[in-house]
Amino acid sequence: MTDKTNSKTPGLSRRSLLKAGFAAGAVAGTAGAARAAGDPLITEIQDWNRYLGDGVQARPYGTPSEYEAHVVRRDVEWLTASTESSVNFTPLHELDGIITPNGLCFERHHGGIADINPADHRLMINGLVDSPLVFTMEDLKRFPRENRVYFLECAANSGMEWRGSQLNGCQYTHGMVHCVMYTGVPLKLILEEAGLKTNAKWVMPEGADASAMTRSIPMEKALDDCLVAFKMNGEALRPEQGYPLRLVVPGWEGNMWVKWLRRIEVGDEPWHQREETSKYTDLLENGKARRFTWVMDPKSVITSPSPQAPITHGKGPMVISGVAWSGNGRIKRVDVSLDGGRNWKTARLDGPSLSKAMHRFYLDIDWDGSDMLIQSRAMDEHGFFQPTKNELRAARGENSIYHNNGIQTWYVKADGMVENVEVS
Amino acid sequence: MTDKTNSKTPGLSRRSLLKAGFAAGAVAGTAGAARAAGDPLITEIQDWNRYLGDGVQARPYGTPSEYEAHVVRRDVEWLTASTESSVNFTPLHELDGIITPNGLCFERHHGGIADINPADHRLMINGLVDSPLVFTMEDLKRFPRENRVYFLECAANSGMEWRGSQLNGCQYTHGMVHCVMYTGVPLKLILEEAGLKTNAKWVMPEGADASAMTRSIPMEKALDDCLVAFKMNGEALRPEQGYPLRLVVPGWEGNMWVKWLRRIEVGDEPWHQREETSKYTDLLENGKARRFTWVMDPKSVITSPSPQAPITHGKGPMVISGVAWSGNGRIKRVDVSLDGGRNWKTARLDGPSLSKAMHRFYLDIDWDGSDMLIQSRAMDEHGFFQPTKNELRAARGENSIYHNNGIQTWYVKADGMVENVEVS
Repeated sequence: MTDKTNSKTPGLSRRSLLKAGFAAGAVAGTAGAARAAGDPLITEIQDWNRYLGDGVQARPYGTPSEYEAHVVRRDVEWLTASTESSVNFTPLHELDGIITPNGLCFERHHGGIADINPADHRLMINGLVDSPLVFTMEDLKRFPRENRVYFLECAANSGMEWRGSQLNGCQYTHGMVHCVMYTGVPLKLILEEAGLKTNAKWVMPEGADASAMTRSIPMEKALDDCLVAFKMNGEALRPEQGYPLRLVVPGWEGNMWVKWLRRIEVGDEPWHQREETSKYTDLLENGKARRFTWVMDPKSVITSPSPQAPITHGKGPMVISGVAWSGNGRIKRVDVSLDGGRNWKTARLDGPSLSKAMHRFYLDIDWDGSDMLIQSRAMDEHGFFQPTKNELRAARGENSIYHNNGIQTWYVKADGMVENVEVS
Repeated sequence: MTDKTNSKTPGLSRRSLLKAGFAAGAVAGTAGAARAAGDPLITEIQDWNRYLGDGVQARPYGTPSEYEAHVVRRDVEWLTASTESSVNFTPLHELDGIITPNGLCFERHHGGIADINPADHRLMINGLVDSPLVFTMEDLKRFPRENRVYFLECAANSGMEWRGSQLNGCQYTHGMVHCVMYTGVPLKLILEEAGLKTNAKWVMPEGADASAMTRSIPMEKALDDCLVAFKMNGEALRPEQGYPLRLVVPGWEGNMWVKWLRRIEVGDEPWHQREETSKYTDLLENGKARRFTWVMDPKSVITSPSPQAPITHGKGPMVISGVAWSGNGRIKRVDVSLDGGRNWKTARLDGPSLSKAMHRFYLDIDWDGSDMLIQSRAMDEHGFFQPTKNELRAARGENSIYHNNGIQTWYVKADGMVENVEVS
């Protein structure tokens, strides 16, 4: 779906907004929101109590309820010139836990979705190897395999926010990220099968789609934790995620996770392809560009409340929910502020804590109904913190659109509506 | 989809099949299966390299590749009289890892799929409580919540195999199990909100569907790890899994996980409802029935190779893959036999090890192309082992269809085809 309401607002700067008096209580409470006795929806027999529903043959492959039709990936019409080289966004504000359902994982293509019959797919290993090899999908499934949960974040996630708050919803500001369980063969095993020459220092995965995406990856990473993956969340990769084969490069920027993977060339130096020079490099204030910013630094965002998920129940007990991730490893702590960064409380991390995977955090509060400026700040196991957006700009200027892991602020109004703002 | 080929074969007993000479090597090997040079599928430009594919607006909610159309839930036509009170099965033989995609989680209904608008759904807590309460979905989402990965297994899973091998595929013999990440509110918090009277010893969840499913659960379990869940794998529950609300009863038999949960009654003794007396009890050899068999004991099955997933690549390196689970906690070890239980090797467990969740195991072998009788045997962290089917029958007779966690045997023939058999 396309959201036409997220038009550019170039004249509007919200950076200096800061209000006093965000006195929301922060003690976890219980809901205490029982209905009055006699609600006919519980006292009376309803149609769905009375009549048989659909049977087991209705949907051999299941789909969401019709009441969840609004939970979809969305694109932003003005953001890209063509749908084939474009992006849509994960509806983070509607999700919980740490697993992204396959049907809701954001898409980013450079030449559209390649339509490949797996029987016709091949993976070639060539270059500085003892034996160049070509594998079918069946060949690859004969290697020992692993299962790992990893987040994947596009380097341009939050890119539209470098110069000020712009897109009104975490689906758009932070939705170029997803997290699934991959099943695949360690790239190390495949490279060892071909035999690496002593001067083999880099690999270049290449996609089979019309854009033939190529990136340079140092051998140390290729031999560490990269996977040649054929399944996500238990089933075959989705077409838009590289079916039948994609490279998994844990913790590193998304376009290195080459989809529709058809070839891995082994070399002695990086190739400096288009998508790692004119694109996916950070242009600094002085006009120079940083070469190779691979690791996705710690980041977090509050998913609810947020502009697309306002508070509709009034004051009282409520859940502030969000996600955090780091390309360096596990998330150790997430802090939440209700007053624009003046005071911080440690959020509750809940669910499995897995390296280079999403983590879910909650702060259970008793909202007094007054305005809040809510923020989250992630810290990973190596002690790396999210910076403020202004700290990020001071260090890197305003020329880049990549690698924005600055702290996000949502302005929660007394009526429960939420807006994307910045605080100075 | 319905599989009509799985007809009953009452005259056929495969129990005594045992062949000698299953001399498959068991050393992990690499694939070594590179294609000859010059395969045009890698040397020539293909259509999917040449032309742009579909763009990001094609599927707001994604679906699997057209080449995966065979990966669906299937029912067995003769197994039940109506589709509304019936079952279909997870295609375990096509899956990997430990997460079941929502669209492939098996279904078991007693009155069809209730079609409920979440705005109209209510949950009532009544009985031996200080304050009877009625909650909307929004009310429930104001309580602190948790995220946990749990398997759910129907008590009747493998039930058709009690009296001998019958259904030719692990989708049918073991496919009434799935494993997803749930998000929900601890039942404990909701019961505490209502306030438990001192004689409150049991709870009875009730479904809002036409069958009004009811079960008795002891208070100790209700206050331990039960969840009132509204999400699975990050998104809203699927309609066939109880949308918008289901009870999660970790490690215990599936029909206690009441779907379309509308009421929880608190009492001082069990209710002995239909689905825990005339059904879902184990009828023993002497005609007496066991009351309340709640915990699903350790169990495992090899998913590939299996009758629906034969070996198609001939001898050489290959992966034996399977799943194991236990209602008691974590799986500690899985052993695999290639010769019908004479010799056992410890399989490699891979992926997160989470309590009361599925575990994935692999044995990487170098198959010499001769017949095998492959089995798996799970042990949980408390030291409980899977029994053989004959040990199970000796203890419990042949009257039951529930709680069959006996060791499954697949007969792998030299041509790669696989059959469901038993060994004596």
